[in-house]
Amino acid sequence: MFRTVLIANRGEIALRVARTCRELGVRVVAVHSTEDRDSLLVRFADEAVAIGPAPARRSYMYAPAILEAARRTGAEAIHPGYGFLSEDPDFAAAVASEGLTFIGPPSGVVAALGDKTHARELLSAAGMPLLPGSLKPLADAAAAHRLADEIGYPVIIKAAMGGGGRGLRVVRASADFAEAYRETRAQALSLFGDSRVYVERYVAAARHVEIQILADSYGNVVHLGERDCTVQRRHQKLIEETPAPGLPRETVERMGRAAVEGARAAGYVGAGTFEFIVDDAGDFHFLEVNCRIQVEHPVTELVTGIDLVAEQLRVAAGEPLALGEVERRGAAIECRINAEDPARDFAPAPGTLTEFVPPGGPFVRVDTAAYQGGRVSPAYDSLIAKLIVWAPDREQAIARSARALSEFRIGGPGIATTAGFLAETVTSPAFRVGTHTTSSLTPPAPGN
Amino acid sequence: MFRTVLIANRGEIALRVARTCRELGVRVVAVHSTEDRDSLLVRFADEAVAIGPAPARRSYMYAPAILEAARRTGAEAIHPGYGFLSEDPDFAAAVASEGLTFIGPPSGVVAALGDKTHARELLSAAGMPLLPGSLKPLADAAAAHRLADEIGYPVIIKAAMGGGGRGLRVVRASADFAEAYRETRAQALSLFGDSRVYVERYVAAARHVEIQILADSYGNVVHLGERDCTVQRRHQKLIEETPAPGLPRETVERMGRAAVEGARAAGYVGAGTFEFIVDDAGDFHFLEVNCRIQVEHPVTELVTGIDLVAEQLRVAAGEPLALGEVERRGAAIECRINAEDPARDFAPAPGTLTEFVPPGGPFVRVDTAAYQGGRVSPAYDSLIAKLIVWAPDREQAIARSARALSEFRIGGPGIATTAGFLAETVTSPAFRVGTHTTSSLTPPAPGN
Repeated sequence: MFRTVLIANRGEIALRVARTCRELGVRVVAVHSTEDRDSLLVRFADEAVAIGPAPARRSYMYAPAILEAARRTGAEAIHPGYGFLSEDPDFAAAVASEGLTFIGPPSGVVAALGDKTHARELLSAAGMPLLPGSLKPLADAAAAHRLADEIGYPVIIKAAMGGGGRGLRVVRASADFAEAYRETRAQALSLFGDSRVYVERYVAAARHVEIQILADSYGNVVHLGERDCTVQRRHQKLIEETPAPGLPRETVERMGRAAVEGARAAGYVGAGTFEFIVDDAGDFHFLEVNCRIQVEHPVTELVTGIDLVAEQLRVAAGEPLALGEVERRGAAIECRINAEDPARDFAPAPGTLTEFVPPGGPFVRVDTAAYQGGRVSPAYDSLIAKLIVWAPDREQAIARSARALSEFRIGGPGIATTAGFLAETVTSPAFRVGTHTTSSLTPPAPGN
Repeated sequence: MFRTVLIANRGEIALRVARTCRELGVRVVAVHSTEDRDSLLVRFADEAVAIGPAPARRSYMYAPAILEAARRTGAEAIHPGYGFLSEDPDFAAAVASEGLTFIGPPSGVVAALGDKTHARELLSAAGMPLLPGSLKPLADAAAAHRLADEIGYPVIIKAAMGGGGRGLRVVRASADFAEAYRETRAQALSLFGDSRVYVERYVAAARHVEIQILADSYGNVVHLGERDCTVQRRHQKLIEETPAPGLPRETVERMGRAAVEGARAAGYVGAGTFEFIVDDAGDFHFLEVNCRIQVEHPVTELVTGIDLVAEQLRVAAGEPLALGEVERRGAAIECRINAEDPARDFAPAPGTLTEFVPPGGPFVRVDTAAYQGGRVSPAYDSLIAKLIVWAPDREQAIARSARALSEFRIGGPGIATTAGFLAETVTSPAFRVGTHTTSSLTPPAPGN
């Protein structure tokens, strides 16, 4: 195992990775922006290095400062968390060229899967079920339009280098295609520095289900079951759970096998997620691969008893997977509590936390870097805390989520949170029955 | 299920019971002392009733005020938590005579098992293995001394109405017996209002292991395995865990069967604990029954996935046990973090919490009623928080406990805690190997 690991991230995921490092006897190096100098991670870490100011491109996404911090502190490996540089193949390559270990897939794999058009082509050849759409980069606007007409509307135009719900547009009629195509390319260029897009059939009333995989350097690949991430708002996940309600175990097993085969075909190493949509006929279709730990990984941990970050570290350190038979028990639900105001169309509502009391008790896990007296910074995303609960079955997990959400005491000037909105959502009839789709669980109006 | 339950307790256990009530859709009535008016429970409860000032005999142990609160709020049942009135047969009877449900065994069972001499007699007849000692109340000092000489020294003299490590004395030689006998009787009278004592062989280097049982009103009794509570200081438990290290599963099964048979013989209903000592030959001997939920119940919950308080409520509401096959997974450890100063012989160190940040993350549970800005009152016991962790095996559970203990940030004028001491203890060689006994894990000197 590594002696020292540098965590190139912030917030709850950085602290969560640090916790596992400590448990494995690994020395923790934190890097932090000046904005984050009072973070719990800085206090928890064995060593902390300031690497620059907000915004992230001047610190958490500024590779030279991170690599310099690794050199100075003797770190042998870098864990990138999620977001920031976690799926940047250039960063993975730079880490490796310093003689350090990037805790994630090899740079070439990140590059191949990060380009969604390339990923579609590669995985299609490995037998992965895809939605009808482009398998090669589109030659020009006319070719793209012809393909969309052929597929039939609605279609979705997505940035080749996009992901996480950004850089996409749904087109409902041929007449709207040309403009949407132009807009998506422009947005893709501005968001990802790459204007390439691709087109595929859009499934409106779908379930979003993903498979967690783990792969070592010796060709061993396992999947740890699914997570249902259907509850989204503007393509951002709000609630994730396992098992996926109403999905036959046989379908999950087929998705799992497809993900394992896909990972093998890509030469994947580390923890990764294969995202699928499941249409109303129960058929699943590949969406994208996330080459990193996911925000929602804890739901898998709670039903399997496996620490996914520990497995990332072990595999990165060259150990073979040794999980044996993966047993799943019960149900788990994660709710993302954001500093957003549901009464103001979910506008960000950051500020200083004059009150922060998280819930506790039986089968409740809270992953957070927030603390009373600390600050939710407007410079970063609005996630305050992840609440993850376990229960023997989904019904009890829903009741437990609602109970724990009701316990959060979060306050401060300007602070608003989604805790109450999430409590309404998990106890709503559509969620309880489990028949919701990506388009049906729109937020209820405030007060409803 | 009950519509409304009154919780006749305070602190972490009252909040923990309230959490389960909420999850079961049960309305929560809190009673509280004026001292506790700002507690998290008061804020969490559906209704809160002030019942008197500290000390406890004027509020949490003052039955008339509690029963009046139950009447006024329409509570149908009373959960007594642990301590206070939880093992008072008169209270259980008074609750029943009001037409309410006492969430615990029937008054007669509490009375029979609460008198330790009577419990020994009753359970001995049911085949329970006992240490050599008195089976009947001792006639006088001379008879007691003769019995002690017959058993052989060391012996322990215990209050018949004692328990929880209070009201007992170890006697190492016949010459010391008469005085110790007199002193123990005097102490028993002052602590429990009853001077009766009994004598049994004292096992110095022992393991303290207990069995959790659940019984319904239809004669169904199950056990949920063991907890090892060997790490104690002055007969107060500090760390509890399951599985018990080094104890053959076959021995645990025999202890489990003995506890189930004992519970049947006593007509037990509800959750209860049979405490045993295991001597260095591996033989187990009955100590006492605790007719209530235990402080350390969460370790059993984390390995079985069962909410013990929910089972208490179901059984009290007349439902039959429906647990099916109880599966155990992994290992769990609880550490009790007290507001005590290890550097000053564990003197109480209460005060206002200007800082309170509990740990979180994978497989960590914190049961606490403490919060930043709140107060650890000198009027009550010094428990600040219980940290309970789960891991696939004991070694990982130890590492996780140490990690989580290192995360606690607890501060304020006059406040000291045992978190650091507990971290030293769980990572000590004797605890790691698991060969410690009730007498070997004395607190290390400060700084060692």
